[in-house]
Amino acid sequence: MDEFELIHRYFSRLGAARADVFLGVGDDAAILRGTDDTDLVAAVDTIVSGRHFPEGSDARSIGHRSLAVNLSDLAAMGARPAWAMLSLTLPQAEPDWLDGFARGFGELARAHEVMLVGGDTTAGPLTVSVQIMGHVPHGTALRRDGASEGDLLAVTGTIGDAGAGLALALRTLATHDAAAAGELRRRFEYPTPRVEFGVAARGLASAAMDLSDGLVGDLPKLAAASALGAHVDVDRLPLSRALRAVAGSLARDFALGGGDDYELLLAVPPARFAALASRAAALNLTLTTIGELRRGNTVHWALDSRSYAPAVEGYSHFR
Amino acid sequence: MDEFELIHRYFSRLGAARADVFLGVGDDAAILRGTDDTDLVAAVDTIVSGRHFPEGSDARSIGHRSLAVNLSDLAAMGARPAWAMLSLTLPQAEPDWLDGFARGFGELARAHEVMLVGGDTTAGPLTVSVQIMGHVPHGTALRRDGASEGDLLAVTGTIGDAGAGLALALRTLATHDAAAAGELRRRFEYPTPRVEFGVAARGLASAAMDLSDGLVGDLPKLAAASALGAHVDVDRLPLSRALRAVAGSLARDFALGGGDDYELLLAVPPARFAALASRAAALNLTLTTIGELRRGNTVHWALDSRSYAPAVEGYSHFR
Repeated sequence: MDEFELIHRYFSRLGAARADVFLGVGDDAAILRGTDDTDLVAAVDTIVSGRHFPEGSDARSIGHRSLAVNLSDLAAMGARPAWAMLSLTLPQAEPDWLDGFARGFGELARAHEVMLVGGDTTAGPLTVSVQIMGHVPHGTALRRDGASEGDLLAVTGTIGDAGAGLALALRTLATHDAAAAGELRRRFEYPTPRVEFGVAARGLASAAMDLSDGLVGDLPKLAAASALGAHVDVDRLPLSRALRAVAGSLARDFALGGGDDYELLLAVPPARFAALASRAAALNLTLTTIGELRRGNTVHWALDSRSYAPAVEGYSHFR
Repeated sequence: MDEFELIHRYFSRLGAARADVFLGVGDDAAILRGTDDTDLVAAVDTIVSGRHFPEGSDARSIGHRSLAVNLSDLAAMGARPAWAMLSLTLPQAEPDWLDGFARGFGELARAHEVMLVGGDTTAGPLTVSVQIMGHVPHGTALRRDGASEGDLLAVTGTIGDAGAGLALALRTLATHDAAAAGELRRRFEYPTPRVEFGVAARGLASAAMDLSDGLVGDLPKLAAASALGAHVDVDRLPLSRALRAVAGSLARDFALGGGDDYELLLAVPPARFAALASRAAALNLTLTTIGELRRGNTVHWALDSRSYAPAVEGYSHFR
């Protein structure tokens, strides 16, 4: 199987079909429709074997995650995703692996009306880089730098689950609760990007980002971008039943330091919180306030009203 | 140096500054201006150490080439480049290496008014994936599938040089002509994407692609996309003085099978060839006809009016 055949077989018609794609996979570049009244929102994220997922992970999960982490970036901007490009570096062209990868990528792409419009494949160590493009009405994107003092901090869903799921996969965490373990592993392997809620949060949230590197690593970035400090009540972090069952006293550490949840962290003026919460409820998504933005340049963590020093730190490469 | 510092120091202001970038590096995604009357043209290309360039290559060359291969894709579409995203996977964060890489990338970006608007960095085997976006007036992009029977085939510049330059770097080719060797190595290390000529070819060329995998590998793709065959007079391939001096009787093989030239291959109706050649001349670029598109589905190679079987094949991964 050469490169051309590989692309033709697995990637030439992956994801949704879209009328705004004039030319997709197969030429030197894709040709896509531009529009005056929308801003183009674009992001790229790469996942590397042994770094962002355990070596030997299921190909379908790798395909899903490579797109999910990018959809999550657009969700954090309030953007509606449209087009993806895939740069796939892999050691060899195994049909079973490629089938699984394309299935995981394609299912999630179709669920979000995303079309794969280009990319390349290369022989080399397994690395999956996805670039995603989407749209917001002009000027409405949710940025990190829009929060004001007194805005509430809220997170979607529950946090820490994916970190515990990864720890279970790596056997640094163990449990007898097979159902809870399965649930946590699925949270790592098949994260749900909060695209619909990101779109719904436009005009209500003042700032947003997605939680990829853990709350302790990510929140300071949002606060710094908005030139503010923050206060978080650690006892308010939303922990799933499965995480509590499996991680016990470590659940809070996973919620603070575990990455890969791909939930959204939002800042919202108190007067608009009820409206935002009702949009979350309409999507069957919980939205939990965990603190607020404050003047200053540090993030203060409190547990039972006392200062708390997280025992964990967010994920960073090159440290 | 953590990831945040690395991005801030090397990549937060790389390339040109552009007014159509509402938000660049540093958030979850970039926010870019859309326009009704232009089509968005987007491509991604990845280069992997030991695969697309020798291990230990100069970092500045790697930075240059990672962008050049993508600019070349836009050139082949007749698109004016605007925005780039960079996904950089590298074993460790060495300041000297990053300085060189950013310099090579940045110089070429500024020369083409391209702004780096996003990306990510990851620890892992050296892999550089660049995604590029640009524009053409609606409906004017040069596609591979627009050629007609009887259209002339033309290539810009000279071909085979980069392949010979790589062979010199890998010591599978040797020479006493240091000046010629230096010239060929520069052609590999610092290819010149034909962006201005691609733009100039809009409305004249009927189809175009860039030569990245060698004429023998690439031409059949253009012919197939246009549902045609082709005839090439191998004795008309434009060979540089340096290639002839260094490669001797192998020069033709490099021109047929050597990759990485990033010259353009164009189809042009005979009646429009003079106009296209004059636009090339205005850019100080040679444009050489090498054959024509014909009915059928095979590419016929001829030397001194006799059928010729190239001894080389185009580059392909996974073969």
